[in-house]
Amino acid sequence: MKVFILGGDGFCGWPTSLHLSNLGHDVTIIDNLSRRNIDNELEAGSLTPIQYMGTRQKAWKEVSGHDIRFERLDVAKNYHRLLTLIQDEKPDAIVHFAEQRAAPYSMKSSAHKRYTVDNNLNATHNVLAAIVESGLDVHLAHLGTMGVYGYGTAGMKIPEGYLPVEVTTDDGTRVRQEILYPANPGSIYHMTKTQDQLFFAYYAKNDHLRITDLHQGIVWGTHTPETDQDERLVNRFDYDGDYGTVLNRFLMQAAVGYPLTVHGTGGQTRAFIHIRDTVRCIQIALENPPEKGERVKILNQMTETHRVRDLAKIVADIADAEIAYVDNPRNEDPENELHVQNDLFLDLGLEPTTLEAGLLEEVTSVARKYAHRADRAKIPATATWTERQKPGVPPGDD
Amino acid sequence: MKVFILGGDGFCGWPTSLHLSNLGHDVTIIDNLSRRNIDNELEAGSLTPIQYMGTRQKAWKEVSGHDIRFERLDVAKNYHRLLTLIQDEKPDAIVHFAEQRAAPYSMKSSAHKRYTVDNNLNATHNVLAAIVESGLDVHLAHLGTMGVYGYGTAGMKIPEGYLPVEVTTDDGTRVRQEILYPANPGSIYHMTKTQDQLFFAYYAKNDHLRITDLHQGIVWGTHTPETDQDERLVNRFDYDGDYGTVLNRFLMQAAVGYPLTVHGTGGQTRAFIHIRDTVRCIQIALENPPEKGERVKILNQMTETHRVRDLAKIVADIADAEIAYVDNPRNEDPENELHVQNDLFLDLGLEPTTLEAGLLEEVTSVARKYAHRADRAKIPATATWTERQKPGVPPGDD
Repeated sequence: MKVFILGGDGFCGWPTSLHLSNLGHDVTIIDNLSRRNIDNELEAGSLTPIQYMGTRQKAWKEVSGHDIRFERLDVAKNYHRLLTLIQDEKPDAIVHFAEQRAAPYSMKSSAHKRYTVDNNLNATHNVLAAIVESGLDVHLAHLGTMGVYGYGTAGMKIPEGYLPVEVTTDDGTRVRQEILYPANPGSIYHMTKTQDQLFFAYYAKNDHLRITDLHQGIVWGTHTPETDQDERLVNRFDYDGDYGTVLNRFLMQAAVGYPLTVHGTGGQTRAFIHIRDTVRCIQIALENPPEKGERVKILNQMTETHRVRDLAKIVADIADAEIAYVDNPRNEDPENELHVQNDLFLDLGLEPTTLEAGLLEEVTSVARKYAHRADRAKIPATATWTERQKPGVPPGDD
Repeated sequence: MKVFILGGDGFCGWPTSLHLSNLGHDVTIIDNLSRRNIDNELEAGSLTPIQYMGTRQKAWKEVSGHDIRFERLDVAKNYHRLLTLIQDEKPDAIVHFAEQRAAPYSMKSSAHKRYTVDNNLNATHNVLAAIVESGLDVHLAHLGTMGVYGYGTAGMKIPEGYLPVEVTTDDGTRVRQEILYPANPGSIYHMTKTQDQLFFAYYAKNDHLRITDLHQGIVWGTHTPETDQDERLVNRFDYDGDYGTVLNRFLMQAAVGYPLTVHGTGGQTRAFIHIRDTVRCIQIALENPPEKGERVKILNQMTETHRVRDLAKIVADIADAEIAYVDNPRNEDPENELHVQNDLFLDLGLEPTTLEAGLLEEVTSVARKYAHRADRAKIPATATWTERQKPGVPPGDD
């Protein structure tokens, strides 16, 4: 299969590129290196020593014998170049990670909100418009987020994309309909993913594009079998208050002796998936595309749910760390339940990496190993959702 | 009241600006003149001889004694200038018309799709981000479209924005919820308005912005009491295949002896409102804003529904014209019912101008009066939704 990976330099994109290349697929990474450039803005880099793309490509060729092609372009801006690449290379599938993906970053200021909206929506729309203009039947697999659903339900498991509802008609009869699950995003970033869903629904309906939308949980872990083969292939590990996801932040905090910062009561329940399972899910999604004319295929790409304070306790126990309950910089419910259907991937053969089995390795092989590279000052989450919230800084550290 | 009218040079924006100014409000028009510039691209201008903004301002001052201020800027691009204007002028309300509003134009090519998405989404988001950044409590009234609902229902009247549904929980009990009516847009243009709804829902929830979203039907008519006072104040009348809405197109076709082009069977039912009622609805919306912290207030801004072939017959009878059933360039259901709730505006005192009462005046005072300015070649709708559709050109005219 010939596959374009948009955003293939990022935390999920890079291991996905290696995984698909390792399976023998012809992989082209398309990326504007925005994630690396944002490191420069935030003055916080990957904990792991990620290498330049040229070094990554060379190392992968040495290790696997496979070439990965790299095209540096901005999918949200360089439409014509994207179109020409599609027309010339005729990919079978495009995996679309090319969006700004941190909720806190999207809330830092008006400029960050506007960048996230402009970048994410134009990137997604350009890909769709380019596929239509090419006239080719390219399967698009997009990385969405569990956050499109929001974190409250009426008491049923969150389904995979579509919700059966009943409406009462004017003559009093009840009619059953299946609708796109009502969106309830918790940040500007999440909002753009709910708007992406409307792009996909329209292009699937009007142009019969084949589209898979993967509603992913919070990704944890760093290594995959492919990135593990050479240190030059190492994946990103973000620990800072903007890009570090909750579990990685806890691991890092434990490794450097910083208290694990739990926002509010820590009663927020979230969905998780290991990066090893992310890359396998994308493989499975590419091997099982929707039919032409079918509605958007939506799968929940997560394997387990945990309450944040429980996660903190697990990490604190493994790594002998303190927990600090701090202000919640986010505007969200302090406590929520979360029950999620993920039968589609399990039925297609996914065997989840459990937190229980994988967490200790993360502590030793990543967080402790690279702890000397961390800047403590970058750890707390400081972007607040409105002026009503405060940064999540432990006492004595602000 | 101090009011900014974004897109105040356009078909709805200009008469709204005059109407609010006439009521004694302090009106500032913000516009990048994009609609006039698109005339140059399409080589099809307003049937009515609209004047430059400077002439319009001067005429209005002479007629009414009121000043209308004009700021030329691009709301989708010139964020900082917009923010500064809000901070300096502290408007009580902003009326947001600053979007590309023609479905056929949005479907003409990839470039037109991309322009519509980029312009409309960034314009709406910039306004929201600027209001939040200003820290002011500005009421935002946005012009949406009935097209966000789509044109099929499960058998009930389309409600005003929110749909009561029942979901079945895991233990079998039914729970009633009220959700944003599931979006089903029929073009890229309509899709952007469904995405606007998600912007509004998020900013109302997170930042407690006061937002009114007006889901407007197809606007017909040209003159309002204010534009009628001086020919230099005349409003736009678009008759071309991209911007001419169905009723104006029929009126024009009748006036120049061109057959009334009905797409497909003409079985499409649509909602309508006269431009005189549009400006009154906006006045009513500004006088009845939502409370801070309230969800987005959604009103259906339409007064009657008609099937397209019935409209054609009415116009043909009044103006003694022929009807031609032509290919439908749009990808849509050939026939649909449409029943719409519009109680909110009626309860607030709107007295609709009926098609029956107003149509003959349009034929004589606009279409026939300015028929000599029309270019017949620009009349048929040529933008097709996909390669499967064909332009709506009558036999012998293609």
